[in-house]
Amino acid sequence: MRRPIRAPPVIVTDTSAVYHDCMSEPTFVLVRPQMGENIGGAARAMWNFGLSRMRLVDPRDGWPNPRATAMASGAGRVLDNVGVFGTTAEAVADAHYVFATTARDRDLTKQVMTPERAVAHARDIIAEGQRVAVLFGPERAGLENKDIVRANAIISVPVNPDFASLNLAQCVLLLAYEWRRLTGEAVPEELVLAGTRRAEAREVEKLAERADVALDEAGFFFPEHKAPHMRQNLRNLWSRMPLTRSDVQILHGMIKALRRRRG
Amino acid sequence: MRRPIRAPPVIVTDTSAVYHDCMSEPTFVLVRPQMGENIGGAARAMWNFGLSRMRLVDPRDGWPNPRATAMASGAGRVLDNVGVFGTTAEAVADAHYVFATTARDRDLTKQVMTPERAVAHARDIIAEGQRVAVLFGPERAGLENKDIVRANAIISVPVNPDFASLNLAQCVLLLAYEWRRLTGEAVPEELVLAGTRRAEAREVEKLAERADVALDEAGFFFPEHKAPHMRQNLRNLWSRMPLTRSDVQILHGMIKALRRRRG
Repeated sequence: MRRPIRAPPVIVTDTSAVYHDCMSEPTFVLVRPQMGENIGGAARAMWNFGLSRMRLVDPRDGWPNPRATAMASGAGRVLDNVGVFGTTAEAVADAHYVFATTARDRDLTKQVMTPERAVAHARDIIAEGQRVAVLFGPERAGLENKDIVRANAIISVPVNPDFASLNLAQCVLLLAYEWRRLTGEAVPEELVLAGTRRAEAREVEKLAERADVALDEAGFFFPEHKAPHMRQNLRNLWSRMPLTRSDVQILHGMIKALRRRRG
Repeated sequence: MRRPIRAPPVIVTDTSAVYHDCMSEPTFVLVRPQMGENIGGAARAMWNFGLSRMRLVDPRDGWPNPRATAMASGAGRVLDNVGVFGTTAEAVADAHYVFATTARDRDLTKQVMTPERAVAHARDIIAEGQRVAVLFGPERAGLENKDIVRANAIISVPVNPDFASLNLAQCVLLLAYEWRRLTGEAVPEELVLAGTRRAEAREVEKLAERADVALDEAGFFFPEHKAPHMRQNLRNLWSRMPLTRSDVQILHGMIKALRRRRG
């Protein structure tokens, strides 16, 4: 085993308190990771969703690993606090519940959950104040039975049976994403208003009236027996659109400009 | 623009009918993709979750692209059927609803949804028989306003505000994953039984009785005033465990072997 080269320390800026409560998130354990770049990629995947508790089991190239650090880049905080262990058993010793992520069928009896189900379960366990570990295997081989027997349950991502090719960082990403989706604050559907606000109903009404008058004068509601229906449809159109005040002003301006041109 | 080199045809094996109903999935549109490897990576990400409708807008290196094909590898079917367009407007012309994926705040008024919300909406639209397109921008720059104005809504992945570093394939992966999660068949939580079955209650009862007798004889239920409680806890333990028939047989064997040793 190569002698690890000590990497320069990464400066950590504490910017987000919610991500520092170590007891309130699962620990992601990379078992026998091979390439440093993949460890760094996994760190990036985790930190995209605010997870930062990582452990390594018997990394091939030792630790620290400059390639991992370089790849992690802005996610270096994950590597700064990484725990390194010789065996899977040691790495999960303090966990109250262990998941093993694997795509392949095994000759082992085991409970198998989707990421969604597993994360919901993990959330419940962590809410009780207990610790959860999630095992990820080396890219080529995946986890071995000697690792999986130490897990309470398996997480299997429901991939295309004809093409299951998630790499380590992608697997970590999906689990981290699910964690944040299920435990993060609900994100309300948002209308981003760039320098304006939603139009009030009276503003829409005024626009509708103006359009109605202008189009009537232009002979738009023709033939006459269709006019009431056309006018109703148009009035309905305005209210169905998520108009901002800015939109209303633009539409007023359009009507005005078009009328001028006709005149 | 470099003249595209025609790549050798990729042989497609039709292995899964559910993934061939082109009307029943969204189209993923890569806008001005730069590196062929990233196009191939996006194809892999999609095909992991059974999505295969891809379009390209003005790919930097033209099309076909051998690097894309090489990276796509087993997901080559996605690239075989890719549509290539000169502009975003052309690429989405036949869509009934267009999403733009972007992480950055923009100076545009727009509805913003999480991937989950967006996919639920996409599912509804597709269920009506209408087409959905999802735009992904080039890795460094992301989508430009000229692309986003052509979308009905924005999809924003709720990443860590201090570290948003999803690459193109990861973004595509998350959307593909959400599509499959929300529209795929519900995956029942599964107990994989490797050559056995769940134990019947009578088999567990028999094991419990045997253990009770063996432990009683060994003086385990001591002191006497604690015995009923201990026996009840032990009886409860057996039923709380998800024992298979195989487990029960093993435990019977253990009890027998330990008694022999004592005798």
